[in-house]
Amino acid sequence: LDSGHAYPAILPDLTAEAERVLTTYRSQALQYGPKQGIPELREWITSYSRTDGVSTSADRVLVTNGAKQALELVCRLLLDEGDSVVMTSPTYFTAIPIFRSFGARFIEVGQDEQGIDVDQIASIFAELQREGRPLPKFIYDVPEFHNPTGLTTSLSRRQSLVDLAAKWGVYIVEDSPYRRIRFEGSSIAPLKAIDPEDYVFHVGTFSKLIAPGIRVGWVSSSAEMIARLVQLKADSGSSPLTQRIVHEFCAAGKLNAHTERVVATYRTHRDRIVSALRRELPEISMTVPSGGYYIWLRLPSGIDGDELAKQGAQEGVSVLPGSKFYAAADIEHPKNFIRVAYTHATPDEIDEGVRRLASAFHAVESPPREQHAQPVP
Amino acid sequence: LDSGHAYPAILPDLTAEAERVLTTYRSQALQYGPKQGIPELREWITSYSRTDGVSTSADRVLVTNGAKQALELVCRLLLDEGDSVVMTSPTYFTAIPIFRSFGARFIEVGQDEQGIDVDQIASIFAELQREGRPLPKFIYDVPEFHNPTGLTTSLSRRQSLVDLAAKWGVYIVEDSPYRRIRFEGSSIAPLKAIDPEDYVFHVGTFSKLIAPGIRVGWVSSSAEMIARLVQLKADSGSSPLTQRIVHEFCAAGKLNAHTERVVATYRTHRDRIVSALRRELPEISMTVPSGGYYIWLRLPSGIDGDELAKQGAQEGVSVLPGSKFYAAADIEHPKNFIRVAYTHATPDEIDEGVRRLASAFHAVESPPREQHAQPVP
Repeated sequence: LDSGHAYPAILPDLTAEAERVLTTYRSQALQYGPKQGIPELREWITSYSRTDGVSTSADRVLVTNGAKQALELVCRLLLDEGDSVVMTSPTYFTAIPIFRSFGARFIEVGQDEQGIDVDQIASIFAELQREGRPLPKFIYDVPEFHNPTGLTTSLSRRQSLVDLAAKWGVYIVEDSPYRRIRFEGSSIAPLKAIDPEDYVFHVGTFSKLIAPGIRVGWVSSSAEMIARLVQLKADSGSSPLTQRIVHEFCAAGKLNAHTERVVATYRTHRDRIVSALRRELPEISMTVPSGGYYIWLRLPSGIDGDELAKQGAQEGVSVLPGSKFYAAADIEHPKNFIRVAYTHATPDEIDEGVRRLASAFHAVESPPREQHAQPVP
Repeated sequence: LDSGHAYPAILPDLTAEAERVLTTYRSQALQYGPKQGIPELREWITSYSRTDGVSTSADRVLVTNGAKQALELVCRLLLDEGDSVVMTSPTYFTAIPIFRSFGARFIEVGQDEQGIDVDQIASIFAELQREGRPLPKFIYDVPEFHNPTGLTTSLSRRQSLVDLAAKWGVYIVEDSPYRRIRFEGSSIAPLKAIDPEDYVFHVGTFSKLIAPGIRVGWVSSSAEMIARLVQLKADSGSSPLTQRIVHEFCAAGKLNAHTERVVATYRTHRDRIVSALRRELPEISMTVPSGGYYIWLRLPSGIDGDELAKQGAQEGVSVLPGSKFYAAADIEHPKNFIRVAYTHATPDEIDEGVRRLASAFHAVESPPREQHAQPVP
């Protein structure tokens, strides 16, 4: 229950797409492609973004090797050693070492059911200004089905966030891998859709829509910023082979049907893990996510997430301790959280995993006494 | 005649490999893969390297998105702002902006028929030491069929280079994309094969062996350095889909036969362009390369490569001016060179391209007078 992997049974059949690409488009797919990404895919991403209210164009989209390369390139563009970035506490743990590798310092802010705490950011900015210190270079957030908390930012909070960015001239990095994995409720405009002044870098990916192994993502921003990111992408462009496979799949209209299957499957998984958790572990509390991959579990205050994860591993269930999701090293963080993922395991494995987690929980709650009272052999 | 693209007709048929990977190995190929690269491919690269006398192992190989990502990661590992690197003058032009983006300063050294000028490097190092200044972080070279000069470093020069690196504790980045594209003569041990102290980062790629669009390359070094490079590779690993396609192709024994076809084809192209150049442009001189993709043409001293390239473009032939291949901005470089590539064009296009190049040459040599003597309308 630890990973953001796809459910194996739902990985799509891409053989027809691959065959077509490797025959009809062989000489394009196997040569160097354009550094910015193949135009057909950038056009398709543009029209896909339009269904979300994002008005972009092919010259304002850069295709990347998954979302992580997009994050890395944005860091290369915006960060110098010692610059700071704003992020929620907790946040996506893979982003932390990427930002850190560019010498970033972290400013953590809170998050509630409405999303990232914009008022807190505003008062931090005001204080930095009073002290004559530099503002952060960007605000990083996962506004939909946040990793790890599962929370989704409300429209009014989004509006406040974009307004704040424009007022202070600070960029936003909107990391949006789970946007279409929504189980109920209606979708909310992406930050990029309500961003007339182009302060938002919108990062998308086909990892959660089609398959992680395809390693195709994108970033959309202003034409000027994209041109600078293209310069920084020194790898001769992402593979035109994988890009064309993605494009064939999408252009054939298969993505929508596939997304529906993914959503239906993961909704079942989410329901299954929520029932199992309520049944086996009534001691823990959670906000049930309406989409995405993860649930953030609050343990009773005496229980340490690291210990529970360790004990879980012994009982054969893998979960991530909450401590992995905090960026700032010099701040005391709550210890009583873990993250569970429900996408990769089968429903039966979910039940069994939660049973084992409960068993680990009870072992950590009241440690067994055997080691103190071992019978003399 | 400008690009390092593959000859379209020689791109292999990968449909069988793709189909097998997307069916039999679907759940591995479409999930996240190991960050270091799939073990099967790293094992295969290990045995392939062994045929070159390189004794490595799967834990000392990192799979990358082509050779350029390998160069980028090595820079992230070794370079800080203001560090210097040694390279030949001229050198591979795509490496220049990669190194520069890490704040590198360039120390250019000469090159002759034996390869990079190791004596010159030794005296530069000695002088830096006398002055108490820091040594360069690495020496970058393309020892086989150098881009752009086509020269290949002799074994004794290689030995001197590796000895120098070990003596001074300076790394070598051995960029080796063309190694197997040898038309005649026997191959020479890679630097990595004569490097007992592990100062060499060996960079390889399937771009020239199979297809550029597949974007799979690798770097081999010590286990410790590879572990650090894996940490720096923040993109969740290269696509397991493309890696598995490569592995299927190689493991089925198709690579050797394919390489033979590639070599035979490019030998024909090389012969064709050499004949055409001798016929059409006896004024220029060159060293005929015994492998690789490129010929470096020395123009008579009055002829400017930039002007010739510009005039060529007008006549419908594209070549790269020599000026693109010099790293140091503050040094005067010879202007009378251009690089021609013979892989991408058909043999007939090669003939036609050289004819047009000759026509451009004669126009630059003795510019037409029409613009000074236009008839009054």
